[in-house]
Amino acid sequence: MEKYYLDINDTKTKKYIQIYTHIKNMIIDGKIKEHEKLPPIRKISEYIGVNNTTIVKVYELLEKEGYVYKIVGSGTFASEIKRYENKKYIDKNIIKFDNGNPSNDMFPIDDFKKAVNMALSNDENTIFEYDEGLGNEKLRESISRYFKSRGMDTEKENIQIISGAQQGIDIVCKGIINYSDIVFVEEPTYTGAIEVFKSRGAKIISIPLLDDGIDIGILKLKLEKIKPKLMYVMPNFQNPTGISYSKYKKEKLLELAEEYDFYILEDDFISDFKFDSDDNKTLKSYDKNNRVIYIKSFSKIFMPGLRIGAINIPKELMKSILWAKYSSDISTPGLIQSSLLCYMENFNWDNHILKIEKIYRQKYEVAKRSINRFLEDKINVRKCSGGINFFCELPRGFKSKEFTEFLYEKGVSVLPGTYFYDNIIDDRFFRINIAKESIENIKKGIEIIGNSLDEFLNIEKENESFMNKNLFY
Amino acid sequence: MEKYYLDINDTKTKKYIQIYTHIKNMIIDGKIKEHEKLPPIRKISEYIGVNNTTIVKVYELLEKEGYVYKIVGSGTFASEIKRYENKKYIDKNIIKFDNGNPSNDMFPIDDFKKAVNMALSNDENTIFEYDEGLGNEKLRESISRYFKSRGMDTEKENIQIISGAQQGIDIVCKGIINYSDIVFVEEPTYTGAIEVFKSRGAKIISIPLLDDGIDIGILKLKLEKIKPKLMYVMPNFQNPTGISYSKYKKEKLLELAEEYDFYILEDDFISDFKFDSDDNKTLKSYDKNNRVIYIKSFSKIFMPGLRIGAINIPKELMKSILWAKYSSDISTPGLIQSSLLCYMENFNWDNHILKIEKIYRQKYEVAKRSINRFLEDKINVRKCSGGINFFCELPRGFKSKEFTEFLYEKGVSVLPGTYFYDNIIDDRFFRINIAKESIENIKKGIEIIGNSLDEFLNIEKENESFMNKNLFY
Repeated sequence: MEKYYLDINDTKTKKYIQIYTHIKNMIIDGKIKEHEKLPPIRKISEYIGVNNTTIVKVYELLEKEGYVYKIVGSGTFASEIKRYENKKYIDKNIIKFDNGNPSNDMFPIDDFKKAVNMALSNDENTIFEYDEGLGNEKLRESISRYFKSRGMDTEKENIQIISGAQQGIDIVCKGIINYSDIVFVEEPTYTGAIEVFKSRGAKIISIPLLDDGIDIGILKLKLEKIKPKLMYVMPNFQNPTGISYSKYKKEKLLELAEEYDFYILEDDFISDFKFDSDDNKTLKSYDKNNRVIYIKSFSKIFMPGLRIGAINIPKELMKSILWAKYSSDISTPGLIQSSLLCYMENFNWDNHILKIEKIYRQKYEVAKRSINRFLEDKINVRKCSGGINFFCELPRGFKSKEFTEFLYEKGVSVLPGTYFYDNIIDDRFFRINIAKESIENIKKGIEIIGNSLDEFLNIEKENESFMNKNLFY
Repeated sequence: MEKYYLDINDTKTKKYIQIYTHIKNMIIDGKIKEHEKLPPIRKISEYIGVNNTTIVKVYELLEKEGYVYKIVGSGTFASEIKRYENKKYIDKNIIKFDNGNPSNDMFPIDDFKKAVNMALSNDENTIFEYDEGLGNEKLRESISRYFKSRGMDTEKENIQIISGAQQGIDIVCKGIINYSDIVFVEEPTYTGAIEVFKSRGAKIISIPLLDDGIDIGILKLKLEKIKPKLMYVMPNFQNPTGISYSKYKKEKLLELAEEYDFYILEDDFISDFKFDSDDNKTLKSYDKNNRVIYIKSFSKIFMPGLRIGAINIPKELMKSILWAKYSSDISTPGLIQSSLLCYMENFNWDNHILKIEKIYRQKYEVAKRSINRFLEDKINVRKCSGGINFFCELPRGFKSKEFTEFLYEKGVSVLPGTYFYDNIIDDRFFRINIAKESIENIKKGIEIIGNSLDEFLNIEKENESFMNKNLFY
C-alpha cells in the first residue's frame, strides 16, 4: 500500500490527474506488476486523503487509457503493457518516424466530404446493396484511365477493386498460392506480406537488395535450384530501403519471370513521384507477357483510412482472384467506392497528385539534407532515390532494439529492422519514415537521432571497453 | 455472316435496339460461340443496311452489358457467358428468390445519410487514418450493449469489428485453422464458408441437419473417431433450411464442444426475430465455457453494402484473430465504422430492429401461407421456424438444375441445392429466399413455382413413361 502514497502538493494540476499520473507511472515502470490487483477505491482514498469520487475518476481514466482492467465483482487489475507501445500511445509529443501514415494536411478532407455526399445522393439505391464482384464499373474505368496515364496497358475488365493493398496481397496469395509453394521476396521487405504468404503455408526465400534493385546474380542462382510461384517486389522507393530498381533490373526481372515461369506481385504505394530516381515507371508498364500482378495502394497518395485500392490482374488469373476477393469480404463497401469515384471524377485528381507530390518532395529533400548533415558520418544509411523511407545501419556490435528504445526516451520513434526481415540474427537496422511528420519535425527529429547516436554509441563503447577490461585484465 | 441478317420491320423499336437484341440472343443461345469474332462494323452495317454509327452503338451496348469484349487492334469477340447468370442480370422483371439481399425499403437511408455526415464532421481527423486493430472503441461499446441486450455476456475488449460476416468466417479460419485440420459443418450449409475452410487446406465433415437442429447421434459417432478444430453452425433460421436448433440441441452441442475440445463458429444473421421459433437465443448466450466464436452480420438487419459486422471472440483467441484481421485488410474503413456508430447512437437502433422485424415477419407469414397452399402437396418443404429461407425437395428422379432453369423461363429465380452441399450427387433441392421481394411478389412468385411444378413434374413424367414404354415394350 505504501507505494500508492503521494503528497499532493501541486496546486496547479488537478488532484485526480496527479494521482492518475502517479499510478500510471508505477504501472509503466513495473512497480505495479501486470495483473496485480489495485487497492479498493475506499482504501486508497482514505490512504491518500481524497474523496472516493476522485479515485473513481482516476480508475476510470486508467481503464480508458488501457493501464488497468476491471473484473466485475473482483476489482481492478493492472493491464499487460508493452512498455514501448504503451508510451507511444500516450505521449503525443513524440516525433513519429515509425509510421507510414501521411499527415492529415495531405488529405483533401473538404472535397472528399462533398464527394461522399454526391455518392449518397447519386447512388443511394445501389451503394447499400451487395456490390458486383470486381467493384464499381465506373470506378474501375476511372482507375484504368489513371493507370494508363502512368504508362500501363490496362482495361477496366482487368481491374479488381480491393479494400486496401494489404487485402490485395492477401487475395493474390489466396488466389494463387497453395500449401508448400515457394515465394521469393526482397530482403529487407514488408513483413506484413511475408506473414500472409507464410500463413498459407508458403516457403519464403529472401533475395538481397542492392542499391539498384534486386541482386540478379543471387536471384539466378536460386532460380536454377528452386521454382517460385510468385515473387513479391516493390520496384520503386522500396519499403523499408527507399531503393528503386534501375530500368535494366526491371527489364531483367521480367525476363527471368518469363524464363523461369513465375508471377511477380508488384506492390506500388508511391511510384507516382520521381524524386531523384532515373526511372519511376512501374514494373507493370514494362510487362509485355502478363507476368505482373500490380497492386496500387491509395493509402499513401490519398487516405489510408478509406481502405481502398486496385489490382491489375493478368487475364488468366482473374477468376481465381475474383473468387478470393469474394470469399474474403464479398466486396469493398459501395459507399467508399462510389465516394472515391465521385472524387476522381468531380475534383481534379491530377491536381491532387501534384499537390501531395510537392509535400512529399519537400519532406524528402529536408530529410535527405538532415541525414547528410547529422547521420552519415556516424552510421550507414542506404542510398535511396526517393519516397518516404530511409534505412539505417548501426555499427557492428550494436543492437537496433536497444537504440530504438534509447531514442524513444529522447522523443523520437523509429521502427527496428526486425520488422523487415524474415530471419534476422544480428539486428542493427532501423527505418525512418517521414510521411507523417511536418518539415520542422523532420529536421528536429533527425537532429535528435544524430545526437542520440553520439550518446548511444559512446555509452555502448564505454560499456564495451569496461566489459573488455574486466574480461582481459 | 448470314446469321447476322435481320429484317428491320419493327417501326416502334429503335433500329440499334433491334440489332442489339438480335445479336445478344444469338450469343445467349450459343449461335455465336464464346470468343467468336464478330464481323467488323463496316461489314455488318452494309450487310444489314444501316449506318456505321448504328452498329457502333450496338457494339458499345453489347460491351457495356458484358456480351462482348474488345481487343484493341483485333476486333470484337463474344464473351464467355453463363447463360443462366447472364439472363438474370438483364431481366429486371424476374421475381428474385435467389438472393438474400434485403429489399431497399428496409434500409434506413435518410437517417443513415445524416449519420454519415455526423461522422464526417465529428471525426474528420481520425476516420481517414489507419484505424486501431479491433475497430472503433465506441462502436465496440455500442455493439457490446446490443449483444448484451440479446443475452450475451460480452465486453468491448472481446469484440473485433469486421468488414462483413464473410470476412468474419475468413479471419477466424485464418486465425485458427491450419493445413489438414478438420472442420465440421451442417449439411446443407452456406458453401461460401466451406470454400474458405477448404482454401486453407482444411478437411470438411458434413453432419446432417434434422428439423430441430444438428443430428446429435451422427455428430457423436463422428466425434468418437475424428477431432475437429472447429464446427461451423447457424443455430437460428439456418441458411438454406430455415431450421432452428431446439434449446436442448443448443445446450447439447455446447456440451460436446467442451467434452471433445473444439470451438464452435456461430454465424448469426437474423436471430434477432423470433418468428415461430421456441427459442431464438444465440448459442453464444448459452455458452459458459467460451467455446463459441460469435459472428454477427449486419447485412440482413441493416445494410449489406456497408460491409460491416462484429465478432465476439473467446479471450485466448483474441490475438490470433486480431492478427488475421490485420493481415487481411488492416482495418474496416473508419468512415463506415464511425457512420454506423453515429447511427446506433443518434437514431433509435431498437426501433429500427422492430421496424424490419415487422417487414420480415409479414414476408415470412405470407410465404408460409403460399407455400402451404401452392407447394406442400407437390413437393417436400423443410419444416422451418422462421427467417428468410425455405428449402424444397423435388421428388426422386427430378433434377433441381433443370427445374430452376425451367422456372426461370416462367419468371422466378431460385438457387439450386448444389450451392449448399459440399458433395451432392443427386441434387433435387432448391432454396427460396424471400428477403428481397415485396409481399405481392412473394405471393405471385410462389404461385408461379406451384404452377411450374405441375407442368414440370408432368412433363418429366410424360418423358419418363415414354422412356419406360420404349424400354419395356
